[in-house]
Amino acid sequence: MTAHRRQMKLGAFLWATGHHIAAWRHPQAHVKAGVDIDHYIRLARTAEAAKFDMLFCEDAAGVREADVNIASQTSRSIGFEPISLLAALAVQTSHIGLVSTASTSHNEPYGLARTFLSLDHLSGGRAGWNLVTSASHIEAANFGATGLRPHADRYERAREFAEIVTGLWHGKLDGASGSGHDGQCFSVRDPLDLPRSPQGAPVMVQAGASDVGRDLAARTADVVFTAAQTFEEAKAFYGDLKGRLAAYGRGPDDIKIMPGVAPVVAETESEAREKYEELQELIPDDVGVALLSSYLSISDLSRYPIDGPLPELPASEGMQSRQALVIEQSRRDNLSIRQLARHFAGARGHWRIVGTPAQIADELEARFEGGAADGFNVMPSYFPGELDAFAALVVPELQRRGLFRTEYEGRTSREHLGLKRPA
Amino acid sequence: MTAHRRQMKLGAFLWATGHHIAAWRHPQAHVKAGVDIDHYIRLARTAEAAKFDMLFCEDAAGVREADVNIASQTSRSIGFEPISLLAALAVQTSHIGLVSTASTSHNEPYGLARTFLSLDHLSGGRAGWNLVTSASHIEAANFGATGLRPHADRYERAREFAEIVTGLWHGKLDGASGSGHDGQCFSVRDPLDLPRSPQGAPVMVQAGASDVGRDLAARTADVVFTAAQTFEEAKAFYGDLKGRLAAYGRGPDDIKIMPGVAPVVAETESEAREKYEELQELIPDDVGVALLSSYLSISDLSRYPIDGPLPELPASEGMQSRQALVIEQSRRDNLSIRQLARHFAGARGHWRIVGTPAQIADELEARFEGGAADGFNVMPSYFPGELDAFAALVVPELQRRGLFRTEYEGRTSREHLGLKRPA
Repeated sequence: MTAHRRQMKLGAFLWATGHHIAAWRHPQAHVKAGVDIDHYIRLARTAEAAKFDMLFCEDAAGVREADVNIASQTSRSIGFEPISLLAALAVQTSHIGLVSTASTSHNEPYGLARTFLSLDHLSGGRAGWNLVTSASHIEAANFGATGLRPHADRYERAREFAEIVTGLWHGKLDGASGSGHDGQCFSVRDPLDLPRSPQGAPVMVQAGASDVGRDLAARTADVVFTAAQTFEEAKAFYGDLKGRLAAYGRGPDDIKIMPGVAPVVAETESEAREKYEELQELIPDDVGVALLSSYLSISDLSRYPIDGPLPELPASEGMQSRQALVIEQSRRDNLSIRQLARHFAGARGHWRIVGTPAQIADELEARFEGGAADGFNVMPSYFPGELDAFAALVVPELQRRGLFRTEYEGRTSREHLGLKRPA
Repeated sequence: MTAHRRQMKLGAFLWATGHHIAAWRHPQAHVKAGVDIDHYIRLARTAEAAKFDMLFCEDAAGVREADVNIASQTSRSIGFEPISLLAALAVQTSHIGLVSTASTSHNEPYGLARTFLSLDHLSGGRAGWNLVTSASHIEAANFGATGLRPHADRYERAREFAEIVTGLWHGKLDGASGSGHDGQCFSVRDPLDLPRSPQGAPVMVQAGASDVGRDLAARTADVVFTAAQTFEEAKAFYGDLKGRLAAYGRGPDDIKIMPGVAPVVAETESEAREKYEELQELIPDDVGVALLSSYLSISDLSRYPIDGPLPELPASEGMQSRQALVIEQSRRDNLSIRQLARHFAGARGHWRIVGTPAQIADELEARFEGGAADGFNVMPSYFPGELDAFAALVVPELQRRGLFRTEYEGRTSREHLGLKRPA
């Protein structure tokens, strides 16, 4: 093992039965996984034993697919609220980071800052917040909103929201000494009724990939989670984001960029392929098309011939960067809606690699050493099987290559991630 | 032990270093208790071993005393956000209920319903929500509000909020089938993305004692937490609230009324008195007066002579019922501001009993059998000492008398509390 070699960071992206859209139909699927705390405790302990940097949870406050019949056919729609889930996992683990997604669109900064700082104290300095803006009409309808706010407005609110939250975490906001916040979207007077975080402040994670999303990340994020299918996309994103840091007085090491990866691993390549195909064949067409529609923030792709090409799409107020990515790939590879649906349904737009431990490690190493990633957010296709396989097969291979830690560097998330402690 | 005797319900009201305002100055005080999860795990296990019905947490989203200097002198101002705390305690306990306070003033019903139902699943059916409206200018200032809403408006919002939350919990709200909620304060379309609760629905707790607060409790609460100094007050409240149930098609057993009690117990009466006086003498006058001011929702009592009587008070938009209670007692017992401050500072308006296990049990039994309580929310003066003492001395005495369980009735809060499972 090379001493002092730069090492990659790894997240374990948790998601009920698994990230593959047909995970719930897998013969080994635990269908009630989403509300089984023992299931999550097992996953957390597996990831911690393998020295992962963090557990990562997404979130959405609503039924995720607009069509309840489709929603009920996927593994995505049922599960714990993630912050309370991570609070429970905090006292069942000792080192691994605990990152939850929460939206700036339907929360208030004072409450959210307080909840994450509380989780940080509960866990001894292992909490992180993945800031997202809500691009979903579905969520908006549960919070009294009459429609989705325009993309730019959402990010303006997010910027102010993040400024308040970090101000509170850093102990810089106190109305009694004239430094309260009185802004466009929010006003907040008090400091939090909690001491500073054991790690200085919770880790700030972001996933927005649009231009304004990247700027917000460059300004405030410690970790960026992203989706990139190809090496070139990943490298371009990596270079672009690192290039934006200087404008905010930050250095390239101040942000860790961790693209999602959906690995399917087995001792032999044919075994891995077989595992993958078994899952792909379980995807019902209507679920695949509905998921692709939702992913593109358009109402209904099922009106178009399933074996024809993706139609011209109207500009969307939803995920602009996502949409561009999918359209580009569909044109490039000349994919039909069915093919695209199946492709995206499998890994939800993320990078899929199927192979042996050495093949997976080669691919990860190439992006890590090639200036395209500081680490990866691992999205196992089904739980616990595929996380177990990654931990048992890929992690030791990365460790043998000196690419991943064999012991935690400390006790807090910032120590593991190699991030500065805020002053 | 009498078989099938009606038994009292007991809550353990958690609060960092303890409920006594000077608890943090106690020689055995754990000053960082508010952010020490091991401290709370110890308390939870003590309460569960003693077969308490529930852990109970209050909440406020702000610095609790307007004057930060005063706040920093009390044990009240620092601690975990309670829902994440209870989520952590859920996986360190197996039977005890987990009730957190949350305000209808600065939250959204969809998010709150989801978080409590999630906690309910995490804990296997042990969650409860203590609904409060925020009567604090301090909190309002952290949520962009320009002032406190009038009492009646707060309760109108609370009523609609509770209707949505219980609708979501009971699976009765679903916009897709035409039963969404489109009301005065909120609109919500989706059902929750969680299955029904293991206990039918989380337990609904309330503490409002005003007329409109009592009506809301009669309409929706399973448990009512209240403050009553004297037997007569307690009995009047009990009779009044039980009398309101019929109007909502409910029977007297459908609500458990649990007044707060602040016991100080020791093997001998003189030892108990000594423990109590030791704490009382630790209350600084300025803290006592500031706390009394805050308790009465008036800005500053320190302008008045400390050894003089309570001045005439302006009508308050804050805690109307509280204010009346304090004024009545001050006139009745002819108390100076200093005396009143010390008296209230000690138990914060709750019933204080000091004595031997038999004396404490006698007092509790008298209210329980006399139609003034279905149980008690126990507020130990300091932690862990006074909770340990109650569990070791008073609980066995109550059990000997057949007044308290020796084993849990089941696994869920509703089973312990003897509440119906919602259809």
